[in-house]
Amino acid sequence: MARVRFRDPSGSTRIGEWVDGGVAFATERFDLDDVTVLPPTDPSKVVCVGLNYQAHAEETDSELPDRPLLFLKTPNALAAHGDTIALPKDKERIDYEGELGVVIGEQCRNVSRAEVDDVIAGYTCVNDLSNRDDQRVEQNWVRGKSFDNSAPMGPVLAPPDALADDAAIELRQNGEVKQSSTIDDMIFSVPEIIEEITKLMTLEPGDVIATGTPSGIGPISDGDTIELEIEGVGTLVNDFVAKEFTGDTAHDFMPDQ
Amino acid sequence: MARVRFRDPSGSTRIGEWVDGGVAFATERFDLDDVTVLPPTDPSKVVCVGLNYQAHAEETDSELPDRPLLFLKTPNALAAHGDTIALPKDKERIDYEGELGVVIGEQCRNVSRAEVDDVIAGYTCVNDLSNRDDQRVEQNWVRGKSFDNSAPMGPVLAPPDALADDAAIELRQNGEVKQSSTIDDMIFSVPEIIEEITKLMTLEPGDVIATGTPSGIGPISDGDTIELEIEGVGTLVNDFVAKEFTGDTAHDFMPDQ
Repeated sequence: MARVRFRDPSGSTRIGEWVDGGVAFATERFDLDDVTVLPPTDPSKVVCVGLNYQAHAEETDSELPDRPLLFLKTPNALAAHGDTIALPKDKERIDYEGELGVVIGEQCRNVSRAEVDDVIAGYTCVNDLSNRDDQRVEQNWVRGKSFDNSAPMGPVLAPPDALADDAAIELRQNGEVKQSSTIDDMIFSVPEIIEEITKLMTLEPGDVIATGTPSGIGPISDGDTIELEIEGVGTLVNDFVAKEFTGDTAHDFMPDQ
Repeated sequence: MARVRFRDPSGSTRIGEWVDGGVAFATERFDLDDVTVLPPTDPSKVVCVGLNYQAHAEETDSELPDRPLLFLKTPNALAAHGDTIALPKDKERIDYEGELGVVIGEQCRNVSRAEVDDVIAGYTCVNDLSNRDDQRVEQNWVRGKSFDNSAPMGPVLAPPDALADDAAIELRQNGEVKQSSTIDDMIFSVPEIIEEITKLMTLEPGDVIATGTPSGIGPISDGDTIELEIEGVGTLVNDFVAKEFTGDTAHDFMPDQ
């Protein structure tokens, strides 16, 4: 059963079931138009893997890594299914990167690849938005990868058995297919990635691992709609605008969520 | 007034005042031996600045950056004053790096350097532990900088007015002075750093900025005691052992805190 975190019409945050065209919680059923879908998890960190599909490594003229290339997105990066995302201003190129997201189910460390099923809560879709202007000229990809709203994810947390070993992953920009692959094309598998990460870091319940993107990456423009579909998991949809939230004060205070 | 987060003898987490040799909360006063000092804040992220003292950039044969070199530590990296820290196993060199930590007081974005006083809750001491074995051979310093317990900090959150512009920072290894500088030797000042980070990222209350280390870095050995003293702020003390927590199960589950 796919689970969805959402804010109900009264403003309460709930975790319900994703049922055709709507959301069910206890005895209630809501239309999607009447709720706000939230990111499917509230992670303490998002650990990402770069260059994990051979064709993508080739399109970026990168050598294949001999172990998972890790980088981080912090919680400010989260955004949800259905959010209209403002692209960072004054940047020439912000790219989409469709990826399978693994959601961790329990606090763990030193997990062997044979035992990762014990610690996986399920899967979601992650668009690993990338600010190439900055990424190209920094050692650590902080400005390039961890800017606000750079990790839209969702719409649901799909259970582990919903994902086939060769599930299709497809990203569409304004309806046109841009990325199309299957998750068994990953260089490092999900078990290998979790084993590697947990050698040095504790993962917490709700943490997300973004497992890398197939070939076909490209820039997002003002007014684009990006759909990321992973077979068995769901379809993450976001609209993009070339404008940044600006408050009236000299520094922008955000409202409490 | 310097504030300290601690677990009192009944197990409750409190924020009290640091008074000579002990902790005060409401009408109670505790000896340090009777409480567990916790990290002074519970950040969603630690944003770090590399190569921010000229003499340190020189000792590492690095070019001076033309804007703050940013990297990240995730919450699993936190450790507290007084913790005995197990060094990652099978690594040849884990270094200490004494740094001034800035603790953010409110959610903010696009803060101009003239206005950073509005968003700073205070200061603490941060030891930016660095796993050189991995840091040298990875693009993003995830294994190198964000391993468990790689960010001991504390003991207190000192108020903004406790820190002089030219406050001394000194790190001692087993009583021997290894790093000694003043914070006005930073290449990028605290206001410049906050302005730069908040161009792309929202900072949350409790988030920490580690502002870079002076020259004199070096490796930690089994049995070492490291003291990091910042004038006006306090002294962070940790013991180190060359041993990693290992559970009885094949993957190590941590007890709930």
